[in-house]
Amino acid sequence: MIRLLYIFCFVLFSLFCTAQQHPVAFITKADAAFVKANLEKYPVLQKSFRELKNQIDPLLTQDIDVPFPKDPAGGYTHDRHKANYMLMFNAGLLYNVTGDAKYALFVKNILKKYAAMNPGLKNHPEATSSSPGRIFWQALNDANWMLYSGLAYDMVRNSFTTAERKQIEDGAFKPEVDYVTRDLKDWFNLLHNHAVWACAGVGAIGIATDNKDYIDMALYGTTKDGKKGFLAQMDNLFSPDGYYTEGPYYTRYAILPYALLANAVNNTNPGIKIFEHRDRILFKALNTCLQQTNINGQFFPLNDALKEKDYTSNELVTAVDIFWKVYGPNNNWLAVAEKQDRVIVSRGGAEVAAALAAKPGAKMNYKTLESTDGVKGDEGGVSILRAGSGKDLTSLIFKYTSHGLSHGHFDKLNINLFDHGNEILTDYGSVRFIGVEQKYGGRYLPENTKYAAQTIAHNTLVADETSHFNGIGEEGEKYHSDKLYNNFSNPDALVIAAKDEHAYSNIAMQRQVALINIPGGKRLVVDIFEANSQSAHQYDLPFQYNGQLISTSFPYRTFATSLQTLGSKNGYQFLWKEAEADVKAPMVQFTFLNQAKFYTLSSLVPDSAKIFLTRSGANDPNFNLRREPAFIIRRKDTSPVFVNVLEIHGDYDSVNEFSKDAYSSISSIAMIENNADQLLVEIITGGKKLQLAKMKKDFSTTSNHTTAGGLTWKGPYAIWYDGKKM
Amino acid sequence: MIRLLYIFCFVLFSLFCTAQQHPVAFITKADAAFVKANLEKYPVLQKSFRELKNQIDPLLTQDIDVPFPKDPAGGYTHDRHKANYMLMFNAGLLYNVTGDAKYALFVKNILKKYAAMNPGLKNHPEATSSSPGRIFWQALNDANWMLYSGLAYDMVRNSFTTAERKQIEDGAFKPEVDYVTRDLKDWFNLLHNHAVWACAGVGAIGIATDNKDYIDMALYGTTKDGKKGFLAQMDNLFSPDGYYTEGPYYTRYAILPYALLANAVNNTNPGIKIFEHRDRILFKALNTCLQQTNINGQFFPLNDALKEKDYTSNELVTAVDIFWKVYGPNNNWLAVAEKQDRVIVSRGGAEVAAALAAKPGAKMNYKTLESTDGVKGDEGGVSILRAGSGKDLTSLIFKYTSHGLSHGHFDKLNINLFDHGNEILTDYGSVRFIGVEQKYGGRYLPENTKYAAQTIAHNTLVADETSHFNGIGEEGEKYHSDKLYNNFSNPDALVIAAKDEHAYSNIAMQRQVALINIPGGKRLVVDIFEANSQSAHQYDLPFQYNGQLISTSFPYRTFATSLQTLGSKNGYQFLWKEAEADVKAPMVQFTFLNQAKFYTLSSLVPDSAKIFLTRSGANDPNFNLRREPAFIIRRKDTSPVFVNVLEIHGDYDSVNEFSKDAYSSISSIAMIENNADQLLVEIITGGKKLQLAKMKKDFSTTSNHTTAGGLTWKGPYAIWYDGKKM
Repeated sequence: MIRLLYIFCFVLFSLFCTAQQHPVAFITKADAAFVKANLEKYPVLQKSFRELKNQIDPLLTQDIDVPFPKDPAGGYTHDRHKANYMLMFNAGLLYNVTGDAKYALFVKNILKKYAAMNPGLKNHPEATSSSPGRIFWQALNDANWMLYSGLAYDMVRNSFTTAERKQIEDGAFKPEVDYVTRDLKDWFNLLHNHAVWACAGVGAIGIATDNKDYIDMALYGTTKDGKKGFLAQMDNLFSPDGYYTEGPYYTRYAILPYALLANAVNNTNPGIKIFEHRDRILFKALNTCLQQTNINGQFFPLNDALKEKDYTSNELVTAVDIFWKVYGPNNNWLAVAEKQDRVIVSRGGAEVAAALAAKPGAKMNYKTLESTDGVKGDEGGVSILRAGSGKDLTSLIFKYTSHGLSHGHFDKLNINLFDHGNEILTDYGSVRFIGVEQKYGGRYLPENTKYAAQTIAHNTLVADETSHFNGIGEEGEKYHSDKLYNNFSNPDALVIAAKDEHAYSNIAMQRQVALINIPGGKRLVVDIFEANSQSAHQYDLPFQYNGQLISTSFPYRTFATSLQTLGSKNGYQFLWKEAEADVKAPMVQFTFLNQAKFYTLSSLVPDSAKIFLTRSGANDPNFNLRREPAFIIRRKDTSPVFVNVLEIHGDYDSVNEFSKDAYSSISSIAMIENNADQLLVEIITGGKKLQLAKMKKDFSTTSNHTTAGGLTWKGPYAIWYDGKKM
Repeated sequence: MIRLLYIFCFVLFSLFCTAQQHPVAFITKADAAFVKANLEKYPVLQKSFRELKNQIDPLLTQDIDVPFPKDPAGGYTHDRHKANYMLMFNAGLLYNVTGDAKYALFVKNILKKYAAMNPGLKNHPEATSSSPGRIFWQALNDANWMLYSGLAYDMVRNSFTTAERKQIEDGAFKPEVDYVTRDLKDWFNLLHNHAVWACAGVGAIGIATDNKDYIDMALYGTTKDGKKGFLAQMDNLFSPDGYYTEGPYYTRYAILPYALLANAVNNTNPGIKIFEHRDRILFKALNTCLQQTNINGQFFPLNDALKEKDYTSNELVTAVDIFWKVYGPNNNWLAVAEKQDRVIVSRGGAEVAAALAAKPGAKMNYKTLESTDGVKGDEGGVSILRAGSGKDLTSLIFKYTSHGLSHGHFDKLNINLFDHGNEILTDYGSVRFIGVEQKYGGRYLPENTKYAAQTIAHNTLVADETSHFNGIGEEGEKYHSDKLYNNFSNPDALVIAAKDEHAYSNIAMQRQVALINIPGGKRLVVDIFEANSQSAHQYDLPFQYNGQLISTSFPYRTFATSLQTLGSKNGYQFLWKEAEADVKAPMVQFTFLNQAKFYTLSSLVPDSAKIFLTRSGANDPNFNLRREPAFIIRRKDTSPVFVNVLEIHGDYDSVNEFSKDAYSSISSIAMIENNADQLLVEIITGGKKLQLAKMKKDFSTTSNHTTAGGLTWKGPYAIWYDGKKM
């Protein structure tokens, strides 16, 4: 059926793809007229236009360098070429909006230099990637160049002579297109976000140059059968919910070529209805990745992610503006656009600017939601449980996805917590200084795989000091975790549970997390982590926290004058052991402060356990790691159940020197029942009983259950507060 | 002369101080009418009024607890009493602005409880201070209570019966006044900021209760001879420039009682011209402390200082509003008021709110300035060298003050750097979690004196691993550093030099720092630190930096699996040695990244030196310290000259993945000449020569000098760039 659709599209598209009126790939004549007419009306549009002019105008009299490729990312030639394609794109926009030929000439002069240089390029001297680039160290960047240069050319080609067009098309573009579609054919045909860029680049050049061959390869793969290429990528790179398996940091990056080529295809062939494709998968992808942000706009750092990235990045500005034009007004996008504080000088950008002027102060509506993973949505997923709103928003992230391709971390059943705008239970993110040449050319650093990707760098269970899947990516990519059940119907007691049976060959893991609003305003994360094995193991459950230790309920030994590492492998070698403690039943508590809020982790200790307070930074010969603390509970057991309660409490006002509710309200945690089928946990908070029962095997929503003490409920879990069901 | 003035004031004041019409201490009838008339006109006033109502109205029906004193700072009774005096003050304001008797009744009910409790109070059970409190653990807090309760009483007393007044004055106030003026007489008569609070408290109660005895003790000391008390404190606690020797964090705290009592005195006795006293010393104090802030409003963390404190604190809101009323409009105060985003519901507050409505967006005008220290301005000082403006402001702080009383650190000739809104060369500040009961009741922690106050925690020279003055405060208080020369006339080459000859008995130290704008936009701090001794010493020059290490020009050894401390005493025991290096002439470079900017420290190595990369956090059994890095240069020598250049360079855009100018432009540093009289340093930056000559003994501004190479200049120093004098 999908095949038939492709063939249909293919035929349809072929009818339209020749002899287009240009520009058409990014902006049309009508779009440009619309922008021009509104340019002075809306402040953000006006400002964005001025910024373009301020960027380009001083350069018009300069000779723009197109240096022979030499440097890795962060180096001069890399940054110069990266700047060049954006300069060409921006000048192309100015040409269309102002009609001033100087902008077209500016683009032409640069393109001519590429036309002279590109035919002579060999693989980049700094190429270390499996898909080496020519203008850049990796082909991915060449694809970026193709996409923007193609769109730029489309915007100015009507000012070129026929001979000039041929010069550009044969000299600047053909060598790059040939390189990626022939030499790197296998890479081009991947269903992977780098290949999305490649297809978008070749597609944009195809549309700009009326080259049907290029367009067809871009949309349907080099063999043009639709099994590969842009449409197949739309079908295969997102889950049905629009989740991209590499995580939101990469969705941000992946969505740009989707938005740009889809826009070009939509302009040249609206009949293909590309923005409706797969039940509006691009619409879902944008919204899903925007929900996976902190209130300051930063993407949740799942997998390899740089924490600085937020939705004000150019990719999201472009996507929001294009999608607004296509899908119409959207309150969340408006809130995002206001933080972006700029638009692309385009029809969508003008419409967004108009909406911003009409309705300032829109707020993102952050929701509790699950995003499934996998093309069919059956490879686990990630859930975000949320409570509160505005500055007081709490977001608990629970990850039970598939591996996340080459950027995946060994973090099955991991949790992270954001609260009051801060990352509280942290994910290291990736070890990389993108764009900084001194740090290995801005590439991923060795500590990325050796530490940041390892299980101990996360907030999930580590058995026997060994990472999930033994830290082997290929192994991790074979499996995914699975949701067991969830219930988001009561906003005061959000519950999700998932299992993983592959991360360790002989240990089955289950984790249920609940975000609970206790009447009166307390907010608790109740985390029940079960491991099941036939044999005894050493289990470590780490909580990477962000804050200053305030107090503990237990004595601990610090290492005053000499520090040792926690272990020697699988990420443990990067952790200094700052303190350790032998603790006994029934409970330990650990309070830390992050800005204005106190957080207390209360841990059930059934018999005894070891606690480690660690800090990253050991075995770090190049100072690539940040120094970040963790609280780790270690137990030796066969099938332990870890029960932890993280309480968000109090207020600390350092300016006015007040603290309020600086102490935890949790006075005890007890495991009341724990058998092969079910368990019951009892927590005393503020003198009241909070009870959580959960099943271990029977997750039917209709089965009835009873505890030994006579509590009854239906379904996989139940929560009672002060005797009343939540 | 000053004595005569006191006597004159004293006589004059006596004529006015009886039978005032109340309210008069904080707000007058006319003030209240003015506020009421403008309440709905100006948004910030309206908002601040609403906030007061929102705070007080829900409490009107509640029985406010006045618990028997029990807890230390951060505990319940402490925070309750602290809240109570502000509640009374705020309710008093509401009574005057609305005329609604319920607010007066609210204050009365609370005061009656204090009247019942206070006569029975003994020293606080948690009192550990040399000036124990009764309602609170320390008398300072009792003084806070007296000041605000006194002002509150003044605002509501006209609604009390004569019997009620007597009940309050005898029961609530007299025991407190008697306690601080008799039992704590010596403390009350100190010339110290705690005593300012005590005098302000007794003075406010005196004015509120028409008690001439109290007023006289407050203004002139318990013996009423003017040698002590509030006016003597105005004469003795600030330098002529308005610098308060404990530093801006404490000026912030100290200025509140000055503002409040001066306002009350001015209302009751304008003839005394208290706001003109000592050439407008209070005006200068406010402006000096506002200049000693980062662009985000945080006070420079000189001495014991909590870094979170900024000028939005209640103390500064109060001072700005009172001073505006007295001294008239001021653009810097307007900028500060806008960030404060609230006003005191008072005449000054209403005027500020009106100005904010009329002229939003005022910007602080940060200046290069020197503030002398010492009552006569002859005990050294602190200079702030500034370049750039707005977000691009660089502020180099050079401290050559006296010790700073009990809150002083052993940091003679210390430098700190703020740039782009961030603290770059850092001062640890103080080790204290104010208001957090779990951290030793919110008091200073042991690591404050053991680490934060020690020399190695700063950016100045440490000889033989021993702090200045052997870390003995009493010794430090005997001496001060001295300015040698400065020149702020060329904004592109700001220079200041100072010496210290007491911090080490056998070592004289001189430091010249220059903040230089190189044509083309580079900004450099050139730091020449000379030590002079008859014998060899181990000299450590630390640079506490805030950022991520990006690269070094030298190889270093890290301690992969085991860390040791840098030393065993004088603060060294708190530093982990993360790396060390043996380096050789001529230069080492060290680059770190802080958010969007790169910083490279280039250090001259004349022969050889050791480099240590350290991090705080060793010997920290209660996790009281932050983990912060330092770069330390160690040399063994008799009279070394340390030449260091800190270059601010480049731009790092992590959202758009660009870095620009990530490499230092400094290619060499050389000591061209260095004899007993003078030295000449040559720095190559961007291929151009930057030369700095300085004298070692002859600091006359009119002497002429020549280098061996034939460079000539006049005065204590000279700077040439590319052959031209700067």
